[in-house]
Amino acid sequence: MLVVMRQSASGEDVRKVVERIEEMGWEAKPIPGEERTAIGVLRNPGQTDPAMFLDIPGVREVIPVSKPYKLVSREMQPDNTTITLGDGEVVIGGERLVVMAGPCAVESEGQAMAIAHEVKRAGALLFRGGAFKPRSSPYSFQGLGEKGLEILAKVREETGLFIITEATDHEVCDMVEEYTDIIQIGTRNMQNYRLLRRAGQARKPVLLKRGMSATLDELFMAAEYIMSEGNSQVILCERGIRTFVRHSRNTLDLNAIPYIKRESHLPVVVDPSHAAGRRDQVIPLARAAAAVGAHGLLVEVHNDPDRAMSDGPQSLYPEQFVEMMEGIRGMNVLV
Amino acid sequence: MLVVMRQSASGEDVRKVVERIEEMGWEAKPIPGEERTAIGVLRNPGQTDPAMFLDIPGVREVIPVSKPYKLVSREMQPDNTTITLGDGEVVIGGERLVVMAGPCAVESEGQAMAIAHEVKRAGALLFRGGAFKPRSSPYSFQGLGEKGLEILAKVREETGLFIITEATDHEVCDMVEEYTDIIQIGTRNMQNYRLLRRAGQARKPVLLKRGMSATLDELFMAAEYIMSEGNSQVILCERGIRTFVRHSRNTLDLNAIPYIKRESHLPVVVDPSHAAGRRDQVIPLARAAAAVGAHGLLVEVHNDPDRAMSDGPQSLYPEQFVEMMEGIRGMNVLV
Amino acid sequence: MLVVMRQSASGEDVRKVVERIEEMGWEAKPIPGEERTAIGVLRNPGQTDPAMFLDIPGVREVIPVSKPYKLVSREMQPDNTTITLGDGEVVIGGERLVVMAGPCAVESEGQAMAIAHEVKRAGALLFRGGAFKPRSSPYSFQGLGEKGLEILAKVREETGLFIITEATDHEVCDMVEEYTDIIQIGTRNMQNYRLLRRAGQARKPVLLKRGMSATLDELFMAAEYIMSEGNSQVILCERGIRTFVRHSRNTLDLNAIPYIKRESHLPVVVDPSHAAGRRDQVIPLARAAAAVGAHGLLVEVHNDPDRAMSDGPQSLYPEQFVEMMEGIRGMNVLV
Amino acid sequence: MLVVMRQSASGEDVRKVVERIEEMGWEAKPIPGEERTAIGVLRNPGQTDPAMFLDIPGVREVIPVSKPYKLVSREMQPDNTTITLGDGEVVIGGERLVVMAGPCAVESEGQAMAIAHEVKRAGALLFRGGAFKPRSSPYSFQGLGEKGLEILAKVREETGLFIITEATDHEVCDMVEEYTDIIQIGTRNMQNYRLLRRAGQARKPVLLKRGMSATLDELFMAAEYIMSEGNSQVILCERGIRTFVRHSRNTLDLNAIPYIKRESHLPVVVDPSHAAGRRDQVIPLARAAAAVGAHGLLVEVHNDPDRAMSDGPQSLYPEQFVEMMEGIRGMNVLV
Repeated sequence: MLVVMRQSASGEDVRKVVERIEEMGWEAKPIPGEERTAIGVLRNPGQTDPAMFLDIPGVREVIPVSKPYKLVSREMQPDNTTITLGDGEVVIGGERLVVMAGPCAVESEGQAMAIAHEVKRAGALLFRGGAFKPRSSPYSFQGLGEKGLEILAKVREETGLFIITEATDHEVCDMVEEYTDIIQIGTRNMQNYRLLRRAGQARKPVLLKRGMSATLDELFMAAEYIMSEGNSQVILCERGIRTFVRHSRNTLDLNAIPYIKRESHLPVVVDPSHAAGRRDQVIPLARAAAAVGAHGLLVEVHNDPDRAMSDGPQSLYPEQFVEMMEGIRGMNVLV
Repeated sequence: MLVVMRQSASGEDVRKVVERIEEMGWEAKPIPGEERTAIGVLRNPGQTDPAMFLDIPGVREVIPVSKPYKLVSREMQPDNTTITLGDGEVVIGGERLVVMAGPCAVESEGQAMAIAHEVKRAGALLFRGGAFKPRSSPYSFQGLGEKGLEILAKVREETGLFIITEATDHEVCDMVEEYTDIIQIGTRNMQNYRLLRRAGQARKPVLLKRGMSATLDELFMAAEYIMSEGNSQVILCERGIRTFVRHSRNTLDLNAIPYIKRESHLPVVVDPSHAAGRRDQVIPLARAAAAVGAHGLLVEVHNDPDRAMSDGPQSLYPEQFVEMMEGIRGMNVLV
Repeated sequence: MLVVMRQSASGEDVRKVVERIEEMGWEAKPIPGEERTAIGVLRNPGQTDPAMFLDIPGVREVIPVSKPYKLVSREMQPDNTTITLGDGEVVIGGERLVVMAGPCAVESEGQAMAIAHEVKRAGALLFRGGAFKPRSSPYSFQGLGEKGLEILAKVREETGLFIITEATDHEVCDMVEEYTDIIQIGTRNMQNYRLLRRAGQARKPVLLKRGMSATLDELFMAAEYIMSEGNSQVILCERGIRTFVRHSRNTLDLNAIPYIKRESHLPVVVDPSHAAGRRDQVIPLARAAAAVGAHGLLVEVHNDPDRAMSDGPQSLYPEQFVEMMEGIRGMNVLV
Repeated sequence: MLVVMRQSASGEDVRKVVERIEEMGWEAKPIPGEERTAIGVLRNPGQTDPAMFLDIPGVREVIPVSKPYKLVSREMQPDNTTITLGDGEVVIGGERLVVMAGPCAVESEGQAMAIAHEVKRAGALLFRGGAFKPRSSPYSFQGLGEKGLEILAKVREETGLFIITEATDHEVCDMVEEYTDIIQIGTRNMQNYRLLRRAGQARKPVLLKRGMSATLDELFMAAEYIMSEGNSQVILCERGIRTFVRHSRNTLDLNAIPYIKRESHLPVVVDPSHAAGRRDQVIPLARAAAAVGAHGLLVEVHNDPDRAMSDGPQSLYPEQFVEMMEGIRGMNVLV
């Protein structure tokens, strides 16, 4: 942290800042400049709040320097983390773009199985589908619950696809962990710390979606919660952020992908379906995500989207999913 | 919902839209205009996704009309809801601006009691303080837990202040409900549906904070979750939204207050401390919130903010809290 | 500026950063810390781009420290600037809240005069009204031009109100300067540098509106353009920013007011009409602006808003303006 | 436009709405629903302000339906506009991705020529470079002016590259039009209506950059200004929007590309350099823009970015530009 003084600050003002730093047990390092003095703060914990010096007379600004996360950082671990499923059939974080596809919600065995066969044929490696659904209306379909998990297990058995499904709270996580290959933590739960800790104790990889208005520092801190409990198998997921924009439900933040890959060793995937919120933008965004360097895609596909029990309008038809996969292969991306 | 067709749409296109509406069991009402046709959708549930018509040829745009919430709406209940504590000593949603003040976190009995006496003397009616703290870093102080709740109960006994404290998940809510007068649901949990449902079963009023980037429709839907379980004692809280701005931690959205009061019958309070994130903006924002017509304030006060275990830099010193209260009284607001 | 190195950075990496700093003719000051080294950059100009070090191996982050503006800063001039009109009848930046009111656009002499008498009676000190209107549609009413300026001059003569009106480009500014008491620069022109320079050469005060998504640093830099040409009579104006919000046209950023007053010596006023975009939020926001400490208000009033040629729906009726003024007086604000 | 009434609205309320619509000379079409009545507004101009009905008792909400632009819309012109330079050597809006590359500012003939040869060799078809620079600080380099335009003309002569350069106001536009092949209108000038009209009278194509927080409707309206003066040769440019994000200067909004291509017939290009603001994100974003379906790229390249007089840190080195072009070719995009 750096405390920047006003030009008019007196020696007494600087002394007060130094004292407050030392009272906290940290180290103060004044840097006198031509126009003003700045004071470096050393040995403080990463999450120190910059506002704590703002009321001392003569302080102009306080600037955070160190990052609050450690385990997530590439500084801690220079080599990429890769997530391996089964006997190595699927590696997330390697050369291959791993595609996870399926309906928003598991609605029935027939529906799940039909879609699973379609997406497998087109090249998906994982089947996605929610058994527990967080819905913004209390009057909406909330998922099939454990019955949905059983259907997912059958899908894996019959198709060989691996499974990813969401755990909506720490108790649900117990059940989900048993059935799934990857535990998904949703956007609205990115800062549900009890769930994050529970996922940190799981023996399955965790896919963590970025919150709707989370900075990447906050996303990294949420991953740090999981890793600090011992689970280092974390996949980050960009799914669009909330902006002033009206032509799409969210704005896909692809600037985030190179930044995450530079700053962290964790793999990162993109969900173009939630970023768009409307079918006609999903294929172009999926192509863009593949081109920008994501390690995987999470895509909604439904065989009858108009009658889907949730998020139908952003789901691709199976033939569109085929088109998407062919387009990506045409870009020479290994998929 | 209104489906707007392109100028070039054919009669066949319009027919397809009508068919899809009717297949869902809803009613279609075409409105031919000079330039184009629009089709009204009637009898559909409030949360229908507008994107579900976008792939029909000839459709230009789909516009939602009805609101997905009911119990929260002033249409359902034209008269203001008021929340009464004790034998009517405190009424939230009436003429008087109800001030709730105290530290971010309960740190010790001594700290809590000292602050409580200060804020009571200055005119606060409720004492706020977290026993369970959702913290963005796993390495930060997470609150005293049940011990903190016991301290809060002592504060009530000794000072006569009512208590408001946060429930961070549905299990914690069981414990919090026993001790507190108002259950607080935090910003990060605005869409933790399991917690919302649990709070809806509580016999205590619930203060629901707006999510960092939640629209007011989303805030209303979160309140609807609580009310749909039977608890109609809900207080909404504006605490600043996330914007591109850098001069404050959040941007206090005071436009929201007249809108909420027009659209809903629920009382609404403002938290200027989290909206600012820095002490020097809290008093001006508290004055603005009182002037704009909020029913209450939620303010952080600490007797030793520099050593506070969380959010110290945005906490007022007790003498600043006195100044704030006097300023508001000086504006002829009944406080 | 502060260049923060990675933990893994070598001495060679640090040397390269120091070299690049010195090649630019600046001074480098390494600060070795426990975990990593940071390098202070001294004697660089304020607007140095932090990204210029990001490609050197071992650099983690670059943090700007100094501010790029000078004349605008309270460091340069500790005492408040006040703007005096006439023989001191109006002082902006002093104790009194200065209210400027009138229609969005001057439509006719009759309209302007009628509104002017109304707002004067209620306590406004300046009459606002556009003769040149920047309109987002090429097909909308663009203002009366010089004819409108003549009407404004008559309003001043007949009512004694001072005049504020907008200059939409540097040529228009020549004409506006002759007629008006304060030159207004609109939101869309906050970074029209040619216009800013022209306003900096004017002998009239300038009211500068914040851009729709401008940071306060950018607002200050725009004011710096004006001041750097020799005109120190600048008034800043907060008028709402663009956010994800849907319940109002913009979000009024009242956090900005205490920040501006701390950081700059220039007076600051608030435009609640454009911040709201709808009449029913204007009075509450005007009260909030008065309470937060603004030096003035800029409010739209129209005697027949439903037939107004621009922005009618956000204009107050004259009787609402009276109500607004009485409400503010009731808060003990000197108006 | 659709005026939605409250459930509690009386027949009298509905009548008042109908009257106001008819007073304006428009047509009212009431649509009685099960729960409430809505009133369609027909024959009103596209830019009608929805707030104009909000103060009538019983009105709940007003929803805009028609779009305010016409010439820009694909409804008006179903076929794609293409922009042809020279004798057809370059077509923007066709199959080929047109790359425009060069320094932010023209600094000297040597610099411009050196970079031009490099980018031409790598496959660029246009040379970009500013002679007039809008800079946020009055103390920054403002461009070489007409001297810069002369250098650009020499570059064209020597290399055969076409030229694109910015006109910063309507007077500058006279000069720029003479020298350039495409007139660029910058982000900060997207709503400089005098400049837009002037560009509409030019006999050269215009590249219009999206404002920092402009909606696509606003971008289309700005293009409408140009087209309404008779110039139909307009290219739209997405260059990143302002969001809460801190890991990049702006957030590239790629959702905009499929939306623009669906809604308008105008070609659309992407500027990854300004979207990133830092060199290390430019190549990934350029790839993403090519994959999402943009018609062209506008990229900053500098042979000595560390000493560039503006925006150096986001400029690619020539060898990085080669890498970018090869990457895009590797994706089977015709470039």
